Amino acid sequence: MALELPVSGAWRPGDPPGNRRFARLAGDRPFVLEGGGALRDVQVAYETWGALSPAGDNAILVCHALTGDSHASGDQGPGHPTPGWWSNLIGPGLAIDTNRWFVVCANVLGGCQGTTGPASLHPDDGRPYGSRHPVVTMRDFVRTQAVVASDLGIREWLSVIGGSMGGMQVLEWGVMFPERVRSLVPICTCLAASAQQIAWWSTGRRAIRMDPRWRGGDYYEAAAGDGPHGGLAMARMISQITFRSDDVFTDRFGRQVVEPIEGFELWQRFQVERYLEYHGDKLVRRFDANSYLLLTKAMDLHDLGRGRGGMDEAVRRITAPTLVMGVSSDVLYPTYQQETIAGALLGNGTDVDYVEIDSPHGHDGFLIERDQVGEPLHQFLIDVEKSAQ
Amino acid sequence: MALELPVSGAWRPGDPPGNRRFARLAGDRPFVLEGGGALRDVQVAYETWGALSPAGDNAILVCHALTGDSHASGDQGPGHPTPGWWSNLIGPGLAIDTNRWFVVCANVLGGCQGTTGPASLHPDDGRPYGSRHPVVTMRDFVRTQAVVASDLGIREWLSVIGGSMGGMQVLEWGVMFPERVRSLVPICTCLAASAQQIAWWSTGRRAIRMDPRWRGGDYYEAAAGDGPHGGLAMARMISQITFRSDDVFTDRFGRQVVEPIEGFELWQRFQVERYLEYHGDKLVRRFDANSYLLLTKAMDLHDLGRGRGGMDEAVRRITAPTLVMGVSSDVLYPTYQQETIAGALLGNGTDVDYVEIDSPHGHDGFLIERDQVGEPLHQFLIDVEKSAQ
Repeated sequence: MALELPVSGAWRPGDPPGNRRFARLAGDRPFVLEGGGALRDVQVAYETWGALSPAGDNAILVCHALTGDSHASGDQGPGHPTPGWWSNLIGPGLAIDTNRWFVVCANVLGGCQGTTGPASLHPDDGRPYGSRHPVVTMRDFVRTQAVVASDLGIREWLSVIGGSMGGMQVLEWGVMFPERVRSLVPICTCLAASAQQIAWWSTGRRAIRMDPRWRGGDYYEAAAGDGPHGGLAMARMISQITFRSDDVFTDRFGRQVVEPIEGFELWQRFQVERYLEYHGDKLVRRFDANSYLLLTKAMDLHDLGRGRGGMDEAVRRITAPTLVMGVSSDVLYPTYQQETIAGALLGNGTDVDYVEIDSPHGHDGFLIERDQVGEPLHQFLIDVEKSAQ
Repeated sequence: MALELPVSGAWRPGDPPGNRRFARLAGDRPFVLEGGGALRDVQVAYETWGALSPAGDNAILVCHALTGDSHASGDQGPGHPTPGWWSNLIGPGLAIDTNRWFVVCANVLGGCQGTTGPASLHPDDGRPYGSRHPVVTMRDFVRTQAVVASDLGIREWLSVIGGSMGGMQVLEWGVMFPERVRSLVPICTCLAASAQQIAWWSTGRRAIRMDPRWRGGDYYEAAAGDGPHGGLAMARMISQITFRSDDVFTDRFGRQVVEPIEGFELWQRFQVERYLEYHGDKLVRRFDANSYLLLTKAMDLHDLGRGRGGMDEAVRRITAPTLVMGVSSDVLYPTYQQETIAGALLGNGTDVDYVEIDSPHGHDGFLIERDQVGEPLHQFLIDVEKSAQ
């Protein structure tokens, strides 16, 4: 099976574009990153749904999480290895109603589904960036999204919405471009990564680095099947546990084994192990190990207060009405962090609402609980829309 | 640094014995394991503290957790790479008072600190067992401990006490030898491993297997420094996160970095990463990767009800008064599992008490919270002692 796999699950220019469109950042000057590095010839892959109103005032930006991409809604198909990650919320008549609103989702910088990232070709030598790709941050992501907005003629977003890593971008939008956001919806996220979150993500990075096939990040020219699949799968397996919950694992898997045998064998698998392996193997087919490194590092570096005179000063810049959402059973981005976000904004005099989703599904609840996420989200968007009329 | 390390941190017969003593299981017949395998010439390393009363009725068995060993109390020194893991509870005048009671702790089968395990030499060829070592279970551990008890002339334990993996052995003692235990103290443990617990431990096993230096388990004859240290350290780093808590990590590490630099670098470490690496490196010096595999598998296989007509039937065999303890912030063996143990025993008519330790330290709280563990434990032991007079 390993031999069928490309070295990286990254989308490559020869692959079908699917629903992607591409924005190019000014080619005549480098895109300087928050961390000090720079990239030339940056390309941003994005998708849109619905139609932009003549006034350009019905646009919603949706920001994806770690292993998401621009394909927030729609079927699996050529160029899109998986169905849209929020297809249950984005579409005609759905909570983020594409009959009413113009929805945009862009793959983040450092990603691997069409936006410039470590699997992209370096303009100097036409070979993949690999280990040469600089560290990126949420603020870099937001700046590329601002370029897409300008290209599309969107001066101000009706809302910027996202969960997990997407929510970090939502908060950065509120601080960096308060005049370009009419509302914000950060979900299952944080003002700054906690030590435990850093611990989890850094362990995943270590798993990738431990894989000899990672080759210091320069594996793209290795033979098919010879990429750092073991390390990336392992990183995913660790995170998959943190994405779900004890209760869900007990209900779904209990102590069932995959193949009952007489006696015991060290590598005999319980069903929960097969489930984790399935998710590890699946990610390897559509993701790039170096992107996993860069984006988890970007999450660890997420700190709204950095370089802004502290968290309070940073939060004070957020003026847009905000709907904060959390999932009751989330152990990775616990509800206390959502309450902290809401509390910080409230102290700021901003119009803030906090909705806690009652779900056993853990962090992934924001992707699963269609109605509990969709209903307050839809109502919030309607209210924001009305408030401007 | 790697070159200084032996291939395995296992104690070897040429090393100083420290406070160890050794029991040998009958050499004329194989020790048949629950899983169907068998071992010959089994040796059990144990330590004792205090003096056995003439009546032989003041003996307490303490069962160690995953990476513990027989050195439950005492200093670091030749043969004992770390201080006793429960030195704050076991000693003269302490909660488990060695002026009053005779305390025994034995290294588990499959371990690496003197009891037969994968680093031990196979009697057939004098070479390490390695991949040939059979799977072991809690019930096998208990049977070796019963042999030690008989060797020492202990017909009945005043109490059997242990946390985490140690608590699993405590429960098995209650089921397997109800007539040989006057009381039980299972702490931060479970009646049967949950799917999430299996998920965590299996991820650690995968980390070891992923290390090319693990060599399918037969690495003992590799050059010094060439053992599966990376995999074992990684397994430990994962588990170390589950042993502690979000709050403790935030308080201790926050978002501090080890060495501040201008800009960002992918492998720059936060303090919490250094902490995890420290614990990974430390374990590698005193533990054996194959033991980690076997003992985590033994924990996953822990199911008090297996082969006994179900959990209710198994629990019904436990007749000894029991003190169950849990730690409020334990995310690995959550308090609901301790309540389940207590509830099951109560339904059984046994004398049961449940004490919840209020601590931010997570699972490791049972090793840290000296007073909160020690006081109810001491009182319980005194009561048990009195009840027999």
